[in-house]
Amino acid sequence: MEQHVTEEWEKFSALLSKISGYNEAIGLLHWDLRTGAPRKGAEVRSRTVGMLSGESFRLETSAEMGRFTEFFSRPAIMNQLTDIQNKIVKDCRKEYERSKSIPPERYEEYAVLAAHTETMWEAAKENNDFASFEPFLSKIVDFKKEFIDYWGVKETRYDTLLDMYEPDLTVKKVDEVFSRLRSRLVPLVEAIAASPNKPDTEFLNRIFEKDQQEKFGLFILEQMGYDFDAGRLDESVHPFATGLNPGDVRITTNYLLDNVTSAVFSSLHEGGHALYEQNINKELVGTPLAQGASMGIHESQSRLWENMIGRSLPFWQRYFNDLQQHFPAQLVNVEVEDFYRAINNVSNSFIRIEADELTYNLHIIIRYEIEKLIFNEGLDVKDLPAVWNAKYQEYLGITPPTDSLGVLQDVHWSGGDFGYFASYSLGNMYAAQMLNTLRKELPEFDEWIAAGNLLPIKEWLTDKIYQYGQSLTPSQIIEQVTGEPLNPDYLADYLEKKYTELYKL
Amino acid sequence: MEQHVTEEWEKFSALLSKISGYNEAIGLLHWDLRTGAPRKGAEVRSRTVGMLSGESFRLETSAEMGRFTEFFSRPAIMNQLTDIQNKIVKDCRKEYERSKSIPPERYEEYAVLAAHTETMWEAAKENNDFASFEPFLSKIVDFKKEFIDYWGVKETRYDTLLDMYEPDLTVKKVDEVFSRLRSRLVPLVEAIAASPNKPDTEFLNRIFEKDQQEKFGLFILEQMGYDFDAGRLDESVHPFATGLNPGDVRITTNYLLDNVTSAVFSSLHEGGHALYEQNINKELVGTPLAQGASMGIHESQSRLWENMIGRSLPFWQRYFNDLQQHFPAQLVNVEVEDFYRAINNVSNSFIRIEADELTYNLHIIIRYEIEKLIFNEGLDVKDLPAVWNAKYQEYLGITPPTDSLGVLQDVHWSGGDFGYFASYSLGNMYAAQMLNTLRKELPEFDEWIAAGNLLPIKEWLTDKIYQYGQSLTPSQIIEQVTGEPLNPDYLADYLEKKYTELYKL
Repeated sequence: MEQHVTEEWEKFSALLSKISGYNEAIGLLHWDLRTGAPRKGAEVRSRTVGMLSGESFRLETSAEMGRFTEFFSRPAIMNQLTDIQNKIVKDCRKEYERSKSIPPERYEEYAVLAAHTETMWEAAKENNDFASFEPFLSKIVDFKKEFIDYWGVKETRYDTLLDMYEPDLTVKKVDEVFSRLRSRLVPLVEAIAASPNKPDTEFLNRIFEKDQQEKFGLFILEQMGYDFDAGRLDESVHPFATGLNPGDVRITTNYLLDNVTSAVFSSLHEGGHALYEQNINKELVGTPLAQGASMGIHESQSRLWENMIGRSLPFWQRYFNDLQQHFPAQLVNVEVEDFYRAINNVSNSFIRIEADELTYNLHIIIRYEIEKLIFNEGLDVKDLPAVWNAKYQEYLGITPPTDSLGVLQDVHWSGGDFGYFASYSLGNMYAAQMLNTLRKELPEFDEWIAAGNLLPIKEWLTDKIYQYGQSLTPSQIIEQVTGEPLNPDYLADYLEKKYTELYKL
Repeated sequence: MEQHVTEEWEKFSALLSKISGYNEAIGLLHWDLRTGAPRKGAEVRSRTVGMLSGESFRLETSAEMGRFTEFFSRPAIMNQLTDIQNKIVKDCRKEYERSKSIPPERYEEYAVLAAHTETMWEAAKENNDFASFEPFLSKIVDFKKEFIDYWGVKETRYDTLLDMYEPDLTVKKVDEVFSRLRSRLVPLVEAIAASPNKPDTEFLNRIFEKDQQEKFGLFILEQMGYDFDAGRLDESVHPFATGLNPGDVRITTNYLLDNVTSAVFSSLHEGGHALYEQNINKELVGTPLAQGASMGIHESQSRLWENMIGRSLPFWQRYFNDLQQHFPAQLVNVEVEDFYRAINNVSNSFIRIEADELTYNLHIIIRYEIEKLIFNEGLDVKDLPAVWNAKYQEYLGITPPTDSLGVLQDVHWSGGDFGYFASYSLGNMYAAQMLNTLRKELPEFDEWIAAGNLLPIKEWLTDKIYQYGQSLTPSQIIEQVTGEPLNPDYLADYLEKKYTELYKL
């Protein structure tokens, strides 16, 4: 590298490191607000978060950032950079151009509206009052349509939104994988609904003391290889994982006294996210690459641990005895096979976040199809409840009795997060495809799980996925790991096999 | 206020509010590091704290800050400001001028050295090796002497340092109050040493479970009127209080299993600091006045609660029964009078932070006299151990057997904090003087404490002290509250009365 290029890179690194410092501070302020900050400090605290976010955004869109990304994108300079350096430049430039393309006053109006719309959504959901929410949501949609114009339309207008969460993902690709998935899942869901082999789930809803739930959760996280010297477990209303830096990746869970599995599976899920971030190569610290490759790849790691490992029979052949020891009275006389069937109970229900592993994907497909209608077909916001209910009837055979149980259930749209939902099912698809390779490369996969020997799995994932952080794109990762592009059949195969056996179809 | 002045004030307020946002974030990052942040994240975290501190310092010393403080200090503009606004301008200008007077490259060299010297101090203390520490400490002292030249010498060179922690305090004043105090305390300490009436303290050092200690601490904090909706209690190696904003003032304590009083009194102490910050007028939020008036006034509030209330007989007449209920086995057959005598045991010891209420002041006076020798009389750093030991022999009748138990015991000097120690005894003096007025204005003071009716005391302190934050100077506060300037006789009177009775002198 020429001397002046080295010098410029050092200055650029200092700027990136400053941005990442802001993000660490903002992350901790958020974590603290959700885990135990006193309520009377929240108002000032929110202003502080706003101030720091503003500073970070100012740096990301600064003239300096513009100059650096332009300079390092010149072919003669690019040639002197490593692959990782080029990826950093590319990602920063994309972010810079995306942010700069929106007139600042329009972005500010949008940010204020989005914050307000989230508040309106909370009230609307509570009062089952879509009409009060509709004018705000319409404005959010209008803003997003305006932003798509600033950002530039790819193949279709909705592609622009998908790309924000899953780089290079297109409607064409999602349509293909979702329709293949849907065509295989809908009959499976119907067959299960018709099956007489319903599991007994009553014992999952006895009263389980919080202390014991917490102890068991800590034990499972340790078994997964979660590093408590680089993280901690706390309690919050909604479970989450937050990577402040790769040496400080925190997770939270929520304990329901009358539901022993909720905290177990949320710990496995958030633990999966956290293992990813804890094992990102330390050399990426202080750069925008020290995070997951995309929302979908991140979700694949949480789903792999939560569902494909955590809801498997070998896992509970090893750990059910431990769970019973934590709750001897509640789980007396329960057999591991009955427990396994209970935690995999399929039921066509209204609420996405409570859905089982199988029908979850249909909840996502419905949202994806509706978002596509809004942005590519001009579906009017006022028609959302009707479209929503029709799709639930078509795919799940049930019609939400109220909008609170239907179109009003998720927070995402009120905050302008269109294009995000697809990542959840992409995560499941990536995970199943990775699982297939994992089983081939580690043929003793099931035996190891049944023996509680989980660390080789964590090591394989670190080697193949975790360490790279965002230095590879989602498509590079899935192809590098599995040798082929995203293929929804792995998920469909996995689900068909699992549920055919479970429900003796 | 003229229109253009109003507009300028709004811009100035935005700058102040941004600085205070940085300080809130830095405060939380520190709190988190000390209460439970995972160790592997600490290195990146320290860099983040450094970055944010740098940003905050940059704003405090910015050209903008210079322009604002110059503008608002013009007589024609000052006339249009409220008292509080004028105090804000005055404090910001003082800070600005102090910081700007040091050449940035010298300050940076100093900051690096100070950080390194703290590390060297830790090792030197552990190895009882003053010689290895001496060259570093010498450089710190040289830097401080150089800074005094930049800052400007007041009456004596050491005055410049005192003023940083206690505005307008001078050697002349401290000499006067400390010599009066010393002349009354030394004979009292000698009389106690000669007294045959030694209390039994054995029962304080039985084994006390942490859970019960925590429960009792929470109970006492609640009794004091500490607002748990605007704060929280956590555990850390060294107890501290930190006001992130007046709606979020956190305290920590440390539990020693074989010492039940350590956590109780540190909770009362930190609780006193926290009550102060929780009750600062909300209108000061986002300005530099939303903090205590000075180190000494702050310390007066912690000492008042810890010692004058918390180590009083009426307090334990009310609460000893509660403590016994938390530890029935450990405190069986202990009478409240015996407990009261035990917690007020006087013993001439080497370590300041473990000293009793009485001899504590002598530890401080020794440090003050030594600092004065260094900065006003040219005492050489290499002679510190000898001077230290001689003073301990003179005032406390004991000679430290090692430097670790002597001159190496405190962290302050290694970080360049000269001028700070005096605040601790000033706090005791302010507190005793305030207590005298408090007893006059609330004649039922002792009966109320004995009845557990502590809230009127908190209200009186809020009314007279807490609410003002830093909008009054320390001298304004002590004169407004007690009608006279700082007078050391109140502390001497209080201690003489208390210990004459306790030791039947």
